[in-house]
Parts: sequence; C-alpha cells; structure tokens
Amino acid sequence: MPHLPEILAQLNADMRATDDWGDIAAYIPQLASVDPAQFAIVVTTADGEVFTAGDVDTPFSVQSITKIFTLAIALGRSGDQLWKRVGREPSGRAFNSIVQLEAEQGRPRNPFINAGAIVTTDEVLTGREPRETLAEILQFVRAAASDDDIHINEKVAASETAHGHRNFALAHFLASCGNLNNAPEKTLGTYFHHCAIDMSARQLAMAGRFLIETDKLPRMILPARIRRLNALMLTCGHYDGSGDFAYRVGLPAKSGVGGGILAIVPGRASIAVWSPGLNRYGNSKKGTQAMARLAREMGWSIF
Amino acid sequence: MPHLPEILAQLNADMRATDDWGDIAAYIPQLASVDPAQFAIVVTTADGEVFTAGDVDTPFSVQSITKIFTLAIALGRSGDQLWKRVGREPSGRAFNSIVQLEAEQGRPRNPFINAGAIVTTDEVLTGREPRETLAEILQFVRAAASDDDIHINEKVAASETAHGHRNFALAHFLASCGNLNNAPEKTLGTYFHHCAIDMSARQLAMAGRFLIETDKLPRMILPARIRRLNALMLTCGHYDGSGDFAYRVGLPAKSGVGGGILAIVPGRASIAVWSPGLNRYGNSKKGTQAMARLAREMGWSIF
Amino acid sequence: MPHLPEILAQLNADMRATDDWGDIAAYIPQLASVDPAQFAIVVTTADGEVFTAGDVDTPFSVQSITKIFTLAIALGRSGDQLWKRVGREPSGRAFNSIVQLEAEQGRPRNPFINAGAIVTTDEVLTGREPRETLAEILQFVRAAASDDDIHINEKVAASETAHGHRNFALAHFLASCGNLNNAPEKTLGTYFHHCAIDMSARQLAMAGRFLIETDKLPRMILPARIRRLNALMLTCGHYDGSGDFAYRVGLPAKSGVGGGILAIVPGRASIAVWSPGLNRYGNSKKGTQAMARLAREMGWSIF
Amino acid sequence: MPHLPEILAQLNADMRATDDWGDIAAYIPQLASVDPAQFAIVVTTADGEVFTAGDVDTPFSVQSITKIFTLAIALGRSGDQLWKRVGREPSGRAFNSIVQLEAEQGRPRNPFINAGAIVTTDEVLTGREPRETLAEILQFVRAAASDDDIHINEKVAASETAHGHRNFALAHFLASCGNLNNAPEKTLGTYFHHCAIDMSARQLAMAGRFLIETDKLPRMILPARIRRLNALMLTCGHYDGSGDFAYRVGLPAKSGVGGGILAIVPGRASIAVWSPGLNRYGNSKKGTQAMARLAREMGWSIF
Repeated sequence: MPHLPEILAQLNADMRATDDWGDIAAYIPQLASVDPAQFAIVVTTADGEVFTAGDVDTPFSVQSITKIFTLAIALGRSGDQLWKRVGREPSGRAFNSIVQLEAEQGRPRNPFINAGAIVTTDEVLTGREPRETLAEILQFVRAAASDDDIHINEKVAASETAHGHRNFALAHFLASCGNLNNAPEKTLGTYFHHCAIDMSARQLAMAGRFLIETDKLPRMILPARIRRLNALMLTCGHYDGSGDFAYRVGLPAKSGVGGGILAIVPGRASIAVWSPGLNRYGNSKKGTQAMARLAREMGWSIF
Repeated sequence: MPHLPEILAQLNADMRATDDWGDIAAYIPQLASVDPAQFAIVVTTADGEVFTAGDVDTPFSVQSITKIFTLAIALGRSGDQLWKRVGREPSGRAFNSIVQLEAEQGRPRNPFINAGAIVTTDEVLTGREPRETLAEILQFVRAAASDDDIHINEKVAASETAHGHRNFALAHFLASCGNLNNAPEKTLGTYFHHCAIDMSARQLAMAGRFLIETDKLPRMILPARIRRLNALMLTCGHYDGSGDFAYRVGLPAKSGVGGGILAIVPGRASIAVWSPGLNRYGNSKKGTQAMARLAREMGWSIF
Repeated sequence: MPHLPEILAQLNADMRATDDWGDIAAYIPQLASVDPAQFAIVVTTADGEVFTAGDVDTPFSVQSITKIFTLAIALGRSGDQLWKRVGREPSGRAFNSIVQLEAEQGRPRNPFINAGAIVTTDEVLTGREPRETLAEILQFVRAAASDDDIHINEKVAASETAHGHRNFALAHFLASCGNLNNAPEKTLGTYFHHCAIDMSARQLAMAGRFLIETDKLPRMILPARIRRLNALMLTCGHYDGSGDFAYRVGLPAKSGVGGGILAIVPGRASIAVWSPGLNRYGNSKKGTQAMARLAREMGWSIF
Repeated sequence: MPHLPEILAQLNADMRATDDWGDIAAYIPQLASVDPAQFAIVVTTADGEVFTAGDVDTPFSVQSITKIFTLAIALGRSGDQLWKRVGREPSGRAFNSIVQLEAEQGRPRNPFINAGAIVTTDEVLTGREPRETLAEILQFVRAAASDDDIHINEKVAASETAHGHRNFALAHFLASCGNLNNAPEKTLGTYFHHCAIDMSARQLAMAGRFLIETDKLPRMILPARIRRLNALMLTCGHYDGSGDFAYRVGLPAKSGVGGGILAIVPGRASIAVWSPGLNRYGNSKKGTQAMARLAREMGWSIF
C-alpha cells in the first residue's frame, strides 16, 4: 500500500492542526484526567505490514472495544446458544438504556450495548471464577496482538465499580428476568475489569487482525464467525450512531469511551485510531473524522 | 462467473422441494390472492451478464423496494438537505411504528420505515403535481432497468389507499409536527402509487444495477451516493430484522411485502429474488434463505 | 352558603390584582385572539342558588369540557359496552399522545384524552348522522343548563378541522386498529364541532349540575353513573396534571384549552371558572389557583 | 352506624360462599405458603367504634400499604421538599416499571410505585441509621394503631432482599441519576424491612385512623396533609388499576401484595380488608369486591 505512510502522516498533521478535540469522558477520574490533545492511527495489513502516525504507543483505556473480544470468546464457548440470551439487532437507543430491556423481558438487543455485553460476560463466566475468566480474555487479546504486555488497569476497574450504578441497575434487571447465571456483583466485577484493559493504538490494531478474513494470518476463530462479528460491528458498533458511522465511513468498527476505535477492512486490514475527545454520540471526534477520510482516500468502504 | 447458472438452478430446485412457503401478506386483496408457491432469482453483473432461475418474468408488487428509487431521486434533488427531515439510523422498531415519531418530534429515523419514506416522497413531490412526480419515478426505474414495460398497478394503489389508515396516521402526525410540505392526501396518494409498481424479478435485478459502484455501467447517481445508499440498505433495509439479515447474508438489501428482495454485491452484481410467502419479520421466507445460501456459496458477503 | 358571595368577590379581585395571566392557546386563531386578562367564577348549588363574580356572561370555547357530556350520552346509549373500546385509567401522558395507543393496540386509556374522546364520539355517532348527533349533544347541554342559548361556534369548528392533523393521526390510528365505526373524517367532524361549543361561565356551571348527586335537582343520568363520572374526572380530568389537581384542589373537575374548568362538589355544588391564560399543563392558570383557594376556604375537598 | 354489623357479617358469609379466591403472590416463599381461603374486614369510625367480621386477628404481611406511613413521616420531616425528588401523578404503568424512570431522569412519578417508595424511604433514612429509621416507622404505626404488638417479620424481609433484583435495579438506577442519598443496599434494606411489617386487619384499620380528617381523634399529621395523602391514595394507590378502583369503589385506598387493602372514608371511617388471593392487577380479589359492595351499601363513595 504505497501511499499509506503519506496519508497517515498527513492525517496526523491535519488532526493536530485544529484544537476542536471534543469532550473527554468525565464519569470517572481516570478518564477525566486524560489530555484531549492526543491522536494516533495505526494500520496493520493482512500482508503483515504496519503503518503508524501519532501517539501510537501511548496506552489508553479501550473500554467497550473489549466487547468484541468477549463476544468472540462467548461464541467460541457457547456457539449459537448465546443468541437465546441476547439479540443481534441495532437497538436504536443509547448504550445504557434500560427501556428496551423491560419491553423485551430482559433479552438485550445486541452484544454491544451495555446490557448485552453484561450477558456476554456472564456467559463466559458461567462455571468459572472471575480470575480465570479474565485470564482467558487477556490471553485471547495478547495472542491476537502478539504482545504479552497488555494489562488490566486496576484503578480504572475500581473506579468503574464505584461509579457503575447504571450498570448495576442493568445487571439486577437482567437477574430479575432470569437472564443472569451469576450474581450481579460477580458478573459486573468481571465486566468492569475486562473493560479496563489498557492498550496502545499499535496494540489495538494488532489485536484486531483476527477479524480480517484472510489466509495470510493465523486463524483464531472460524471464517464464518469473523464475517458475522464484522456484520454486528457494522450494524451495532456505535450504538445509536451506528447508522451514521456506516453512512459516513462504511467500515465495521467498534468504539470505546476512552476515545479508541477499531475498524476492519474485510480481507485487507485492521485499523486503530485514538483521540480521547468525544463527539455528541460518545465516539472519538477526531478518530471518526480520521476514519472517514482514510476510508475515502483508500477506497476502503465496503459498499 | 462460471458456477452461477448451476448454483441458481440448484437453489431454485431446492426451494421448490419443500412447501413451507411462509405467509402471504393479507392486508389487501391484491396481495392476499397471490399463489405462495412461486420462486425466482436473477443475478445481473457489472460485466453485463444476466443469470436466472424460476419464475423470473412474473410481475409482482415491489412495494417498499421502491423506497430506494425515491430516496435516490430525493437525494439528487435536495442533497444533504434531506437529512434535516429524516435520519439515517436503524429504528429498532416495526416498519409502521409511530412511537419514535412522537419521541423525536416528527423526524423519522430513516428513509426506509414508512414514516421516512413518506417524508422522502413528500420531498420529491414538493413544487410539483403527483402525476409529474410519479412520471419521474417511473422514468428513473425504467431507465435503471433499461426496460419501458414497467407500470403502476392501479388496483393495488387503490387498495392501499382504502386500507391505509396506519399510513394516514403517520402522514397526519408528520404534518402536525411541521414535517410535511404537501397535504397528507396528496403525499400519500403519490406514496401509495409508487409502492404499487409491478416488476418481474428480471426487471428488478436490472433496475438494481445503478447501485453497483463500477465503471463498467453508465452512472445514474454519484459514486459516493451509491456507497451511502448501500450503507443505508445494510443498516435499515429490513426494518427490525436488519441486523439479522446483515448477520446471516452480509449484503446491503431492501425487501418488500410483496415478497421481493433486492440485494447488491458492491462492485459486482445486483440480485433480485422473489417468493411471496413471508417470514415473521415480514420479509420473503424462501427469498431470505436463497440470498443467504447464494452469498455464502459465492463468497459475496461484504464482511 | 353565607360567605360565598364575599369569597367569590375577593377571589375575583385578587385574581385581577396581578397580571401573570399565563399563556393563551395559540394553535388556532379564534383562541389566540382572546384577551387573557379575563376571569369569571360561578357556583350553583344543589339548593338552586347561583353565586357569581367576574366576566360570568362572556362566552368562551369550552373545548374538552364537552367530553363529559359526550361521555354521559355514550354511557346512556351503550352502557358498560363502551369500556370495551376505551379504558378508565389515568394515562400518565399528554392529552394528544399516540404512544400508548400503539402499545395498547388502539384502546385509549380513558375517555378524556383526545383518542378516548374520539372513540366516545364515534360510539355516539354510530348509526346516525353528524347533524343528529350534534343536535343530541347540544340538546343535552341545553337541558342540563336550562338554557337554550348555547351554540356551536362554526368558525372554531372550521379552524380545528384545518389545524387538526394530530387528531386526524389519532383517528386514523384508531381506524387501523379496528376501533372506529365511522370514517375518520365523519367522527372527527362531529368531534371538532362538539368541542367548539361556546358557553359562558354561568352556563357552564348550570350545565354541570347534572353531576351533583342530589335529590333536590331533576335527574338526567343514574346516580351510580354520576359517581363514576366524578371518579373519572378526578383521576383523568386534567391529563398528566390530574394527580396535581387532585392533590391541590381535591375536587373532580375537567378543564378545557379555552381556559374553562368545571368542578363538582359531590352532593353540593357545580363550579365553573374561566380565565383563558394557561399554565404549563395546559389548564387555566388563574382558574386553577381560584379553584384551589375556593375549595380550601369552603372546606370542599372530598378528601 | 346501625346496619354495619349485619352488612359486614353478610359480606363475610358471601365472600366465603364461593371459592374463586384469586392467586397468591408467589415470588417469595413466605407469601406463597399462605392459605388463600381467608377473609377479614374491619371498620373503625371517627366516633371510636370498631366493627369486624372474619379472620380479623390473623397477622399478614402489609407490604406496600406501609408506603403510606413512610410517606407521612417523610412529609413530616421534609415537607414539600420531598416533591423535588418524587412526583404525584398516576404513572399509568406497573408498580415496578423502570421505563418512566429513564424517560424522566430518575424522578419517580409518585410515592406509591416502588421507585417512588424507595426515594421516600431514602429521604426518611438520610442522616440516620436503618435501625433508627425502622424504629421510627414502627413507632408511628404502633401509635397510629394504639397497639404496640406490631412487628417486622424478619423472614419476609430476608426473602424480599434475596429476591429483590428488580428493586435493586430501581435503586441503582435512582443512584445513577443522583436521586439516592444513601447506598442502594442501605436504602433497600430499610425499604424491605418496613414492607415486611405484619399486621392483622384489626391493627391495620386502627392504624389507618390517622387519615380520617376529624376533630374526634388525636391528630398525628396536619389536616391539609391528611387530605393530600388521601388524594394521592385515590389517584395512585392501586398502580395501573387506580382508575378502576376509583370508578368501582370511590374511596382513597392503598393495597399490598399480601392481600390487604386500607381505605379511608374521609371524616368518617378507616376500613381494612384482607384476603390473600389477588386479581390480575395484583390487588386482593375478594378484598376489592368487598370494598366495592361496602362502599355502595353504606353510600360511602366520595363522589
């Protein structure tokens, strides 16, 4: 990909040229204290190349992006049985809405809204202890990234637990509907910890390679499952901003409140972008802009 | 595409081998009287090839699939101004739900739910008469299909009008929110008529070619707009079954209550399938099955 | 009631002493052009006494207050059969909300929200023409008020029809659920006309006497039905402000957007108050204040 | 009240004559094991008379009826400040719905739905320990009933805690909206304990006397507040069956899932009825029937 280094360098320069960085997530101190004026972009290709620009080795809290890894593990463990507990439709609502959960008797719309990710975590946890479960999730992420230096940020996990009333509400609601196998505290403890994984943009792009359907890389999950995870990322990966992201960028992707976005170019590349300031949908502001421009300039839209 | 004729022939044979055809739409007599035991599939490629199997020349009511053509015309006329009046997010609700319209003050979630298509029709109608507007829509469809023998079924249009209380409710609600430029009767008259276009599967597949982004075919709309229409079809084309269709088939597509589905393989092909029996989401039962199998066997998933 | 004349005179003086009259309903010109600085209060007792203060002979549009009369007629015609078509629970939503109607498949929560009053009107209309139906409603109101000089304001009726998109939406929605016996236009025509009755506060208080359960006045409806209409007025008479009115005033009452309120002191009196400026719930601002003070000073709360 | 003994005796006999006792609440074993074929009715008058029939000294779990006592204490402590945290409108929804809480940002509709009663309990608890708070509530109830033999059933409280996921969901949701002053576990512990008070029908009727506005009994709360509590009981006391109860019975009342109902005849009497089998609204089936008949035969409807 000859022009990619120039394009990334230009993107990095352009993103830093204006100071409309968006708003930092402020609900826990560990996120609120991050400097918004940071930007990183990394492309890893099916051919094994890696292209980077910006603060690519600064670790950040990947947050909801870990929902992809947990979902991949849950599907590996339980297969299509998982879909009895969680749907795969866009929710049309905010990531933490409890309204649909009441109307639909405790079956979350998809695995990427909080309620659905709690169910997915609960599925992975069933029959094991949080410690083992977190070890498996970390091992999966490290293997995917070919990098053992990926860890859980305990301060972030503790802060999420302390400020997690909305997620406790969701977990107890799921329990009241019979859709939680473990005690809410146990499932949420696991959930808060895997959301508190720190990665750099470089590590995240590397970890995302397992979602490129290609013969050139070692397989971690079945090809059919890769396609389906990408489909879910496209329709549900940005909550009630998923349609807009599909329209503007045209790539399957998952965002996190820490300002990271992981996007996949099917068959070709895994892209990580990071800038901690968020737009009104709660997705990285500069990150979304950079993704849209990169997809357009490279002709990478899947449509 | 060497194996396509065999694959289509086998699909056609297999679909006819079982008699679980699903349920016919019964809300108007013209649809209710259709024989469910029919099946057709047509693939037209960017290279100009056409592959067919089944009842490919039997006309059927394309219904909601026309929303794509009207949307293309509306975007051509008004550009991004259209998005002030209608959103582009999955609704997470049934095609005729009025609930979100109240919560969101009369701006429909996307152009493919009924309320959104009524707004799109209203945008195309503004400043003109229904007769002219319908002539333009028909002309667009005929040009796209390279076939002048495409017509509005007046009996279907009359029946829709007579049974259209839910759509009248949506149109008056939009009017009460100031999001209708024309009288409800006028906009709905136009809407019911363009939904009543009859096409065969062959004509529909031909008409869909304008959504293949390729240099090999004459352009009817801008390439960037083609990608965006495909993105909308993927996220919103099957109402509250859109996520499931993306997961199982992996192609942008739009279904109609008459049993037709139009799907696009970006850069490569336009596919029409028709079988009038519906599944519980209101989409063609055998049509969805056939699409899933064809996409899998041809490796056409975009993910 | 010895002190009543003084109390009413004082109320009238106090209400005029400040100029915070609230906002006039502005959705039709006939209401928008009314001078807000007007106030009237009339008490008619079971003993046949009438006490007045303020602009008691100025006619105003009674609007939703007519829903009581239509409901009384519908119950007289159809008895408890009516409750198959409409409920009797507070809605917890605005008077014109369509949300519950979708969730509850077209059975409105109670006869005082717009959808419920449209069903009630439809019930009275069934088997007859609008002209006859309106004649019966007018005759009932005139008999109740012992006053033949009560008429429909045709300009108001025409304006309501022209601006009634939200009510058209409700009526078509009811029709789509099979809960309308007549064409939406026909039922709504009747509805808009009976809401357009003009009365003075004196006439309204007189007309309200049929809701005082007493042997001292001629009976127009069964005593058990009187109690039940009063119960409905208490729980549902002020839409989503009904609880607040019950809490602050403690009397069954029905308000109209023209600024009138009719309240009943069971067994003792009928009260009409009028002041066209509205509070944020859409009920007469000074009228509500005056009702609260009168009920408190006379010890008329039913609780 | 000369005929009251005969009327109660006849009611008791008639209620026992048929065996359609309704369904026992089954969500905790302590309630599920109660024999449904029990009935008690007690009337205590402003004049100090007590009339009884049936199992009037059998203790049962009063459950939600305690919400009245907690509300009275909360209003005594905080006055109208309480209404900043909770509304006073009928909710139009089930007692444990979380939907409105999301739409209305954590301010429950009224103090009688679960979310509202949790807020009321939290208000009473603020600045104190659960032990003191429960002591105050018990003391209030005992003083109102003139009976010190009223206690909390610890087994019921423990069972409610163990099965209380839905209430934990509500409490955490309130906390996430900033509408909980204490830790969810602490407020809910207090809430579950005061709902677990056992009383006999005799004790409950006696305890209800503080809601009769009269000079003949010692005052526990202000007269204006008595009227307002009665207004709230009428509009909100039976959740989404409040309108129906007002229509059929016409008395302010509060029901509990243990099968008790406390009703007030303003100025005249306090009535307790108990029969553990419930109707489809979750209110005592025979209890509601008996209340309707008693109110009708005594002419006690407030309307």
